[in-house]
Amino acid sequence: MNVTDTRYGLRQQSLCIVGLGLMGASLAMALRDHMDAGRISAVTRREETARAAVERRVVAAADTDFAAGVAQADMVVLAAPVRTILVQLRAYRSAFKPGAVITDLGSTKSEIVQAMNELPENVHAVGSHPMCGKEVTGMDAAEAGLYRSKRWVLTRTSRTDEASFALVRELAEAAGAVTLELDAARHDMLVAFASHMPYALSTALVTATDQASLNDPAVWQVTASGFRDTSRVAASDVTMMLDILLTNGDAVVNAIRDFQFSLDQFTAMLERSDEEGLRAYLSAAAAARKRNGANW
Amino acid sequence: MNVTDTRYGLRQQSLCIVGLGLMGASLAMALRDHMDAGRISAVTRREETARAAVERRVVAAADTDFAAGVAQADMVVLAAPVRTILVQLRAYRSAFKPGAVITDLGSTKSEIVQAMNELPENVHAVGSHPMCGKEVTGMDAAEAGLYRSKRWVLTRTSRTDEASFALVRELAEAAGAVTLELDAARHDMLVAFASHMPYALSTALVTATDQASLNDPAVWQVTASGFRDTSRVAASDVTMMLDILLTNGDAVVNAIRDFQFSLDQFTAMLERSDEEGLRAYLSAAAAARKRNGANW
Repeated sequence: MNVTDTRYGLRQQSLCIVGLGLMGASLAMALRDHMDAGRISAVTRREETARAAVERRVVAAADTDFAAGVAQADMVVLAAPVRTILVQLRAYRSAFKPGAVITDLGSTKSEIVQAMNELPENVHAVGSHPMCGKEVTGMDAAEAGLYRSKRWVLTRTSRTDEASFALVRELAEAAGAVTLELDAARHDMLVAFASHMPYALSTALVTATDQASLNDPAVWQVTASGFRDTSRVAASDVTMMLDILLTNGDAVVNAIRDFQFSLDQFTAMLERSDEEGLRAYLSAAAAARKRNGANW
Repeated sequence: MNVTDTRYGLRQQSLCIVGLGLMGASLAMALRDHMDAGRISAVTRREETARAAVERRVVAAADTDFAAGVAQADMVVLAAPVRTILVQLRAYRSAFKPGAVITDLGSTKSEIVQAMNELPENVHAVGSHPMCGKEVTGMDAAEAGLYRSKRWVLTRTSRTDEASFALVRELAEAAGAVTLELDAARHDMLVAFASHMPYALSTALVTATDQASLNDPAVWQVTASGFRDTSRVAASDVTMMLDILLTNGDAVVNAIRDFQFSLDQFTAMLERSDEEGLRAYLSAAAAARKRNGANW
């Protein structure tokens, strides 16, 4: 059969993961037990990574040539920073097998969905975003359990039909994730609040503290668990975060404005020592954190 | 001997901990192996807590009357929210045994040191601030290891001599902490950056996100580990944090201004899609976080 028959499930597909960083390699490891491991291949830029991935049985085969690597794949998962995915979708639009289902693991969806909409009509494409990660990157940090119980957003494109959507959902669920369907604009607005704006706060916190340390280096000696937690994501991979920010700038700026409104309220109350106002504000925040954090 | 002879170390003292919340009860548990457990007593507001503390051998004796409880103690540790400590230092200034060494576990130091400076001249007083805690409070959450390897700031007052300073340092070290001497104003400026401002950011983040959830409740479904970490301290005990903020307002407002300057830089670069500027800013923040976070 020349055209991928998406009436068959994940087990019947051959899968090519493009990119063997933390996300791509972890996905391969998560799927090995859910489908014929011999059907999982990869494309990776470096020869060395390709060799290591096969040696360690992360994938059955690995290619450093994109077009050659994806040519036979029923499903292709683009697992790279967002702007690399955009380049791949445009540069290799004709490389995919007719009928293939393309998906991605990118952290913003609007620009990727737009690029997917422009793919040839004989391929399927579904945007996806598994909401997990670690501060460490690369294949060495990969683990089969990375996606387990994590939220995985699925986004339809004009190249999505029910069968391709179901197949990508099956892939996410096989990796252990919990899927949620959102359109691209809504996804990007929501993750600006839930992820990109918090990252911006963390980096600004660390930057301001590092500046303060020029006047008094002891500031780093008195940082405790609160600072450690609040600043943790500031150590995230810069290339990945730059791609996210530059493909979701408007939503992130809007979320920062909303944050700033809340911080200004707080600061104004503190400046006038408004104890009752502060108590109400802080109690509401603590309650919201506890209420929503209970399921994390 | 009527007057505490501070030439003798911690083992020779009788110790009264005022307040059996997380901090006070954990201190008692940490010290039980380092001194005669029979010499550790407590003052607590509620009869029920006093009884439970003795039953569980957290302390050898517990009183609900402040004056009676501290009357015989060579050392008194005030383990309550900051403004309660301030009230205790003023209301019970004559309750301490002549020669006694008073210290505290309060999170801000300027106002407490000022109150300690006004104590009768026949007592010693050293400000102190162990930099640890948990989101859960109360004696049930107490653990002997709470202070282990944590930073513990010591602050001299006009009622501090070398012997009393050494004794409080010995107490901190017996609990497993690593001491650091700072004057009150410097301490308060530093912890505004390292602790109180991050708390303000976390609460503003949660407040803004909770507001956004009124328009789209799905925002709480897409929060992942980054949000969880950045927002964690927003769930802190409100009464404790209110006391901290209201006794360190100027330093916290200044730290927020410095943070805001850094966030404004970030936002301006993002608005003009200044990739190189953002890369430099984010790389510096990631490097500072990794460099200083390595020892946490």
